[in-house]
Amino acid sequence: MSMLYDGAIQDLIEEFNKLPGVGPKSAQRLAFHVLQADPDDVSALAQALVEVKRRVRYCETCGNVAERELCAICEDARRDGSIICIVEEPKDVMAIERTREFRGLYHVLGGAIDPMRGIGPDQLRIRELLGRLQSDQIEELVIATNPNVEGEATATYLTRLLLPLGVTVSRLASGLPVGGDLEYADEVTLGRAFEGRRVLTA
Amino acid sequence: MSMLYDGAIQDLIEEFNKLPGVGPKSAQRLAFHVLQADPDDVSALAQALVEVKRRVRYCETCGNVAERELCAICEDARRDGSIICIVEEPKDVMAIERTREFRGLYHVLGGAIDPMRGIGPDQLRIRELLGRLQSDQIEELVIATNPNVEGEATATYLTRLLLPLGVTVSRLASGLPVGGDLEYADEVTLGRAFEGRRVLTA
Repeated sequence: MSMLYDGAIQDLIEEFNKLPGVGPKSAQRLAFHVLQADPDDVSALAQALVEVKRRVRYCETCGNVAERELCAICEDARRDGSIICIVEEPKDVMAIERTREFRGLYHVLGGAIDPMRGIGPDQLRIRELLGRLQSDQIEELVIATNPNVEGEATATYLTRLLLPLGVTVSRLASGLPVGGDLEYADEVTLGRAFEGRRVLTA
Repeated sequence: MSMLYDGAIQDLIEEFNKLPGVGPKSAQRLAFHVLQADPDDVSALAQALVEVKRRVRYCETCGNVAERELCAICEDARRDGSIICIVEEPKDVMAIERTREFRGLYHVLGGAIDPMRGIGPDQLRIRELLGRLQSDQIEELVIATNPNVEGEATATYLTRLLLPLGVTVSRLASGLPVGGDLEYADEVTLGRAFEGRRVLTA
């Protein structure tokens, strides 16, 4: 998109366009929204951007986003320290927290094993996980990496590494999504659903 | 989406979520992108937001975005001042400029007549347009409002208002989009294409 606006609006369009998933048309729409928006809302957004870079860091224990040494979950004494859920990214922590099913702690790896992009076990926070296993009273590790190639590779690697340490290792169930249609399930998911079928009792 | 992150990242997610077309998932993805992005890129975006509110205003003549009294187009002495293209929004100016077909000036109405949203002729920059007609040497007005209900209503209103003033009034052609498929054209567009058909000469 050529340079047709005067400086500031063109700059803003270009900056929006750099964000993931924001194409030239959306960038233009966002910039014109900003132009017409309440000045307070715009400074709030600008301020929030600056504050995130200034204040947010990663939890020294679990690798989740935090504003102090520890994240809100690691700081919470009511959480069950005997079970740790291993995820790829901080946003996975948020997804699991939304279920309200899990009351343990987390360990954020910072990604998944992906040889194509040069990410091996050494690039993930696995050493920190082994450190926690030595010092804490951990009974179970739930591997909750994504159910894709990289996530599965990471889960396999972690299982082989962790099982010999005498801790219970589990993996989130694969199967049919709730509300989904059996007819439209892909073969791998349907295969997993069979594999993980549960015997019902009267 | 409940408050699960610590302050700053949650604030940023909420601010992104206020932008048009950015839902909770996209807002979260953008916020985590910002967290991992180059600090210089993030301050550039924050700065661009502030600068747009500080520097950008509307051209006193045509209503396009500008950083001085006049926009870059009105300031350009090489543009043809005898023909004015009437559009709804500054982004329509940009769309027409991209075609490189038009070398005249613009008049931005700031919207279209839309009684459902309480926008009548008085809310648009029509008085300013009449002012320009008195002082400038204008020969033709090209109405380029959107080909939807509001744009058509605005075009009809403007035509009735402007024709008695003795100026040539034209309207952008409606018809089949170039590269489109006749089979998939809607009835109204196809009807317009018939209506506006051109007699070919050998």
